Amino acid sequence: MPPLENIRIVLVNPIYGGNIGSVCRAMMNMGLSQLALVAPNPAVDWHDAATMACHAGDILARRREYATTAEAVADCGLVAGASNRGGLYRSHAKTPREWAPKLLEAALDTPVAILFGSEDNGLSLDDLALCTQIIRIPSSEAYKSLNLAMSVMICAYELFTATDAFEPPEERSPECPSSMREAMFVKWRRALLDIGFMTPETADHMMLGIRRIFSRGTLTEKDVQILLGVAAQTLWAAGHIPPRP
Amino acid sequence: MPPLENIRIVLVNPIYGGNIGSVCRAMMNMGLSQLALVAPNPAVDWHDAATMACHAGDILARRREYATTAEAVADCGLVAGASNRGGLYRSHAKTPREWAPKLLEAALDTPVAILFGSEDNGLSLDDLALCTQIIRIPSSEAYKSLNLAMSVMICAYELFTATDAFEPPEERSPECPSSMREAMFVKWRRALLDIGFMTPETADHMMLGIRRIFSRGTLTEKDVQILLGVAAQTLWAAGHIPPRP
Repeated sequence: MPPLENIRIVLVNPIYGGNIGSVCRAMMNMGLSQLALVAPNPAVDWHDAATMACHAGDILARRREYATTAEAVADCGLVAGASNRGGLYRSHAKTPREWAPKLLEAALDTPVAILFGSEDNGLSLDDLALCTQIIRIPSSEAYKSLNLAMSVMICAYELFTATDAFEPPEERSPECPSSMREAMFVKWRRALLDIGFMTPETADHMMLGIRRIFSRGTLTEKDVQILLGVAAQTLWAAGHIPPRP
Repeated sequence: MPPLENIRIVLVNPIYGGNIGSVCRAMMNMGLSQLALVAPNPAVDWHDAATMACHAGDILARRREYATTAEAVADCGLVAGASNRGGLYRSHAKTPREWAPKLLEAALDTPVAILFGSEDNGLSLDDLALCTQIIRIPSSEAYKSLNLAMSVMICAYELFTATDAFEPPEERSPECPSSMREAMFVKWRRALLDIGFMTPETADHMMLGIRRIFSRGTLTEKDVQILLGVAAQTLWAAGHIPPRP
């Protein structure tokens, strides 16, 4: 499958139909076709959406809707999120131009998702936790926040232009799907709690660090099987810790 | 004057207020501020324009209007026009990425105009005749025509990124030195042996898998500290496993 056809644009809680339609047109302009919406606002004006989609009404009609972000990306080996948020995630954010070759390469083997948050709040920390890559779109300090459809366009444009120079590499091993990675994190969380590496109070924060470490590069199915094994054995060891008096 | 401030976005006969407002926001996102309109449609909805401009209302308010394209670009040493039109002009059309350095360089010395035609017809041959440069935005054969504000955004984005004004945030934790990473692997090896994840016979092979996982991307000092902490706590838990009979 040509890589662009394996890349899914995921809008999380979009509010305005006009933006959704503009996203469809931008996608078609740049050779993308898969649109997923996560719990769109019930007040979305679908007539506006159709107007702004213009000749890309087909993408709008064939959109898929999901109740949660996790469901929308469950089968995706690579999940990139567009965010200007600072904090823990800032350090491994890269520009769409920097990420484009990696996203295209991954899309040869696995569905790839690119997440965009709602018009008012962007992606939540929970959504960002699902991401293996963070995209930060360059913008002026004077006004950093781009319109939703504009953000999609810039990412789509960078992917489209990057297809030119793009040469598929030789030996690839498929990245593991998001659902499998998430199951691994659940098990690690339990193991790290049980051995006392973290407390229930610090767990969320520590798990962000753990996620970050495992999102620096590719994680194949085989990698995740190893990591699941480590967690399983750690849980077994933790079972021998005597209860506190 | 910084070059971006000397670059004028010129919309010729724009029809929709929403697009004009979106152009303002895109301009401000990318550090541009000078907007000129040539004979906008009398039915332009200025309320829509203000809504879509969002926090870039100032650019909208300070727009200049002209009766003809020639007047709008009269003082400009370089006039670029965005067009997908074929024919005579095709041969010297270049992409926004190719033109950006030249436009920025020119803008150090002279006002520079970038022309965009109306939503329905694009730039006329008369408008193109005023242009010293033709910009062709890459797009899919399946749907070549971009929304007006999207076209402006892509050109503005290419100019902005070409200024190198954008500095990716530097709050990175430095990548950890090899010695620290090796010390971490020594500790993990002991922990994974002690919890029974691997035997002395399989340890070398398993550790290759573990190394591969942690070598897929960057590993910062902070990451390695976390991983050392996991190993230390795992060793502690393993200390409670009763010896085999």
